[in-house]
Amino acid sequence: MWNDVAVCPGSFDPVTMGHLDIIERTAANFSRTVVAVLDNQIKSPLFSTAERCEMLRKATGHLPNVEVKHFNGLLVEFARAEGAKVIVRGLRALSDFEYEFQYALTNKHLAPEIETIFMVTRPEFSFLSSSGVKEIVRFGGSVQGLVIPAVEEALLAKRGALLQK
Amino acid sequence: MWNDVAVCPGSFDPVTMGHLDIIERTAANFSRTVVAVLDNQIKSPLFSTAERCEMLRKATGHLPNVEVKHFNGLLVEFARAEGAKVIVRGLRALSDFEYEFQYALTNKHLAPEIETIFMVTRPEFSFLSSSGVKEIVRFGGSVQGLVIPAVEEALLAKRGALLQK
Amino acid sequence: MWNDVAVCPGSFDPVTMGHLDIIERTAANFSRTVVAVLDNQIKSPLFSTAERCEMLRKATGHLPNVEVKHFNGLLVEFARAEGAKVIVRGLRALSDFEYEFQYALTNKHLAPEIETIFMVTRPEFSFLSSSGVKEIVRFGGSVQGLVIPAVEEALLAKRGALLQK
Amino acid sequence: MWNDVAVCPGSFDPVTMGHLDIIERTAANFSRTVVAVLDNQIKSPLFSTAERCEMLRKATGHLPNVEVKHFNGLLVEFARAEGAKVIVRGLRALSDFEYEFQYALTNKHLAPEIETIFMVTRPEFSFLSSSGVKEIVRFGGSVQGLVIPAVEEALLAKRGALLQK
Amino acid sequence: MWNDVAVCPGSFDPVTMGHLDIIERTAANFSRTVVAVLDNQIKSPLFSTAERCEMLRKATGHLPNVEVKHFNGLLVEFARAEGAKVIVRGLRALSDFEYEFQYALTNKHLAPEIETIFMVTRPEFSFLSSSGVKEIVRFGGSVQGLVIPAVEEALLAKRGALLQK
Amino acid sequence: MWNDVAVCPGSFDPVTMGHLDIIERTAANFSRTVVAVLDNQIKSPLFSTAERCEMLRKATGHLPNVEVKHFNGLLVEFARAEGAKVIVRGLRALSDFEYEFQYALTNKHLAPEIETIFMVTRPEFSFLSSSGVKEIVRFGGSVQGLVIPAVEEALLAKRGALLQK
Repeated sequence: MWNDVAVCPGSFDPVTMGHLDIIERTAANFSRTVVAVLDNQIKSPLFSTAERCEMLRKATGHLPNVEVKHFNGLLVEFARAEGAKVIVRGLRALSDFEYEFQYALTNKHLAPEIETIFMVTRPEFSFLSSSGVKEIVRFGGSVQGLVIPAVEEALLAKRGALLQK
Repeated sequence: MWNDVAVCPGSFDPVTMGHLDIIERTAANFSRTVVAVLDNQIKSPLFSTAERCEMLRKATGHLPNVEVKHFNGLLVEFARAEGAKVIVRGLRALSDFEYEFQYALTNKHLAPEIETIFMVTRPEFSFLSSSGVKEIVRFGGSVQGLVIPAVEEALLAKRGALLQK
Repeated sequence: MWNDVAVCPGSFDPVTMGHLDIIERTAANFSRTVVAVLDNQIKSPLFSTAERCEMLRKATGHLPNVEVKHFNGLLVEFARAEGAKVIVRGLRALSDFEYEFQYALTNKHLAPEIETIFMVTRPEFSFLSSSGVKEIVRFGGSVQGLVIPAVEEALLAKRGALLQK
Repeated sequence: MWNDVAVCPGSFDPVTMGHLDIIERTAANFSRTVVAVLDNQIKSPLFSTAERCEMLRKATGHLPNVEVKHFNGLLVEFARAEGAKVIVRGLRALSDFEYEFQYALTNKHLAPEIETIFMVTRPEFSFLSSSGVKEIVRFGGSVQGLVIPAVEEALLAKRGALLQK
Repeated sequence: MWNDVAVCPGSFDPVTMGHLDIIERTAANFSRTVVAVLDNQIKSPLFSTAERCEMLRKATGHLPNVEVKHFNGLLVEFARAEGAKVIVRGLRALSDFEYEFQYALTNKHLAPEIETIFMVTRPEFSFLSSSGVKEIVRFGGSVQGLVIPAVEEALLAKRGALLQK
Repeated sequence: MWNDVAVCPGSFDPVTMGHLDIIERTAANFSRTVVAVLDNQIKSPLFSTAERCEMLRKATGHLPNVEVKHFNGLLVEFARAEGAKVIVRGLRALSDFEYEFQYALTNKHLAPEIETIFMVTRPEFSFLSSSGVKEIVRFGGSVQGLVIPAVEEALLAKRGALLQK
């Protein structure tokens, strides 16, 4: 039987409607879905790990079987600790396939018992990325419909930081 | 909870070690896996539907939770009839992404409740395809290690037909 | 000044909502748009040239500056005869880039004064193709929302022919 | 009627023969072409915005209907302010399609009335990029034929800065 | 030491300036280059194997170390029989990478001692293919500069056959 | 006759089994193979040029016709100085084709007499990259089988530096 726990990893800086689509579809199919926020101090995210987790909790509040956690080691070790056998990634026609395949195959090498599965992102979100959303806000555009209202507000509050980047 | 039935569709003309890798990984994660052989009279397969099913049954004999069936309508209707909510496809770095994405998105349009999920094929099988295997046999090469022995024999028995193609 | 005539070429067997999106955006920007139906007797289309033109005329009836014509020689000669300096193609993230680039560059070689321009197809149509639409009808699925009602009817009327293919 | 103003956006750090090819083809088809230099203080360009504009003015001096401007907000706002309905981008077989599609679709989301159109870059320029040109100069190679003489001189004058990068 | 014999395989139906570019670059680097014409009765070539070989001999007459042969079995067996350890393929930015990689990896599987090496086709030939050339002639366009004059004549002489296709 | 000297360029930060596969296949075919370590002070490598050369010498100690050198100018100038007419690059299905093609075509522009040839990397190494290996070590995973033991040790010794990155 398919293991009941799935992990949805990412930076989520910030979470977009495209991320939410994948999280919702995962939650519809697994008893327990753990959103795993990459606690990455290197890439200098706009939002702190705590802020990113908080936004994800707001965005997934309607999904009782979704938990939001952060991690900073190997993803497969995190998945093992959570009892998950499945890592779920969204794949867009516009994805960086090279990165996605390397990540999946590296994880298979490190933990053969864990499967990375890809779901095709809804095409209307194919142009959507966290960095794109930040660019739009930075230059004064509207991100309504691309992120939930709480994230839109958070982005506007960070506009000063975006302009310094 | 993730639905317990998965469908692995394909032409399997004939089944290769690459197909088996995906079927085995699916079987390891679902209570019941249905291999769905496309009963396609148009593309003029080398092997009849019955032959392709028979080879698949031999190749999956060690997997008690795998069934082999054929279908000739919409894949999503077949999946619904089997009670499956998941369609599993192998994705190679060399895949025809255009075809795979169109197929997944069309199926999502026709049956939103069914998910197509992709697993990355083991890279040592990335060059392997049914048509490649047939080309090798047609020109007198060995397909040992690329297909199971029963398929190798069946291919050799069809070499006359391959030379006519 | 940008030449006022544009050509939208294709097989349109049959026209889909994705084609219409590109035709409408072209018509919004040129005084005159000529939809050029490839009169190709080789690829054995489902619909005759006359039927394809008829469906396109119904689909573009609301666009007074669009004309539907058919051609069977070099596209650039057709464009020249129409006084067009621009060929418009839709480009999907799922497009066959190899084909599109070869077509554009070959046309540039044959007629340097004519530009091929690409517009990105709306992403919700990225999975949509004439052959996909025919597959769905062939297997008994619904194409509502993917084509206009008149095309849906025409497809159903041809279902017998589709089943023979 | 096709709007008479087109925008050719880019960093142009510095302008190459590939950029010029697209600008010339745009200028041949629109009454007015605005080259829009991205005034980006983040990516630390080699040349200042003023220097990049100056080089572009020299390179487009033979095109009376081309203006060079710089901008630092949303591209679609700049296009609106210029009265342009068309953004022109060169697309190479070697392009970063992911980036180009995201940029075009994001702009469509922000300003549905503005079209991004792509022209296929002449294939002999398919290997050419601003960063490639800078690499060549940095390591002492010749960029003759890849940029206009004034840009070649400007690059040589900056060689010290390139070696510090 | 690098083996002195290289094989340049293909259908060459007919040979184009893009093929010649690769053959010349191969000939410049190996003592002996064997152009291997695929003697394929299935794909219904426009030119017979004898005609294709004849055109290649005319096109390579200036290269004393090039021989033209045809074959109809496994390419690696042909290469072994010729004492070649290298198969040379041209790779375009527009290539069918899936096909090229599968071909190279299948040949490596069948004959590990033989290397397939790729050279990047000159970009001005990136839109050029045998089928494109036939399309142009079929519709009455000029192929001057895309093939040698003898091939141009041969294509014109076959125009009747092309119109039947 | 094929020139007897080949250059295998790269950053090798550090050398992986994928690099070694290409170096060994090059060494099997050329009298002399020069591994050319890019002496790049910009990208802030984990290992110094001297360390990278030392690891490569250990990894290629069994190949008497391989030399390890470093360079910091134009690759084609280095190749000329070594008397090499061939630059060898591994190409993976997951490669950055854009970068590889630009690099090859730029080098062809700078030095038409030097050929860049690509060999397809063994598919089991298709997920392998220097940066992937560093990521694994950084997060505490094992790289056994992905690099030689001496490189594994060197990576573990640098783990502190990796954690600062």
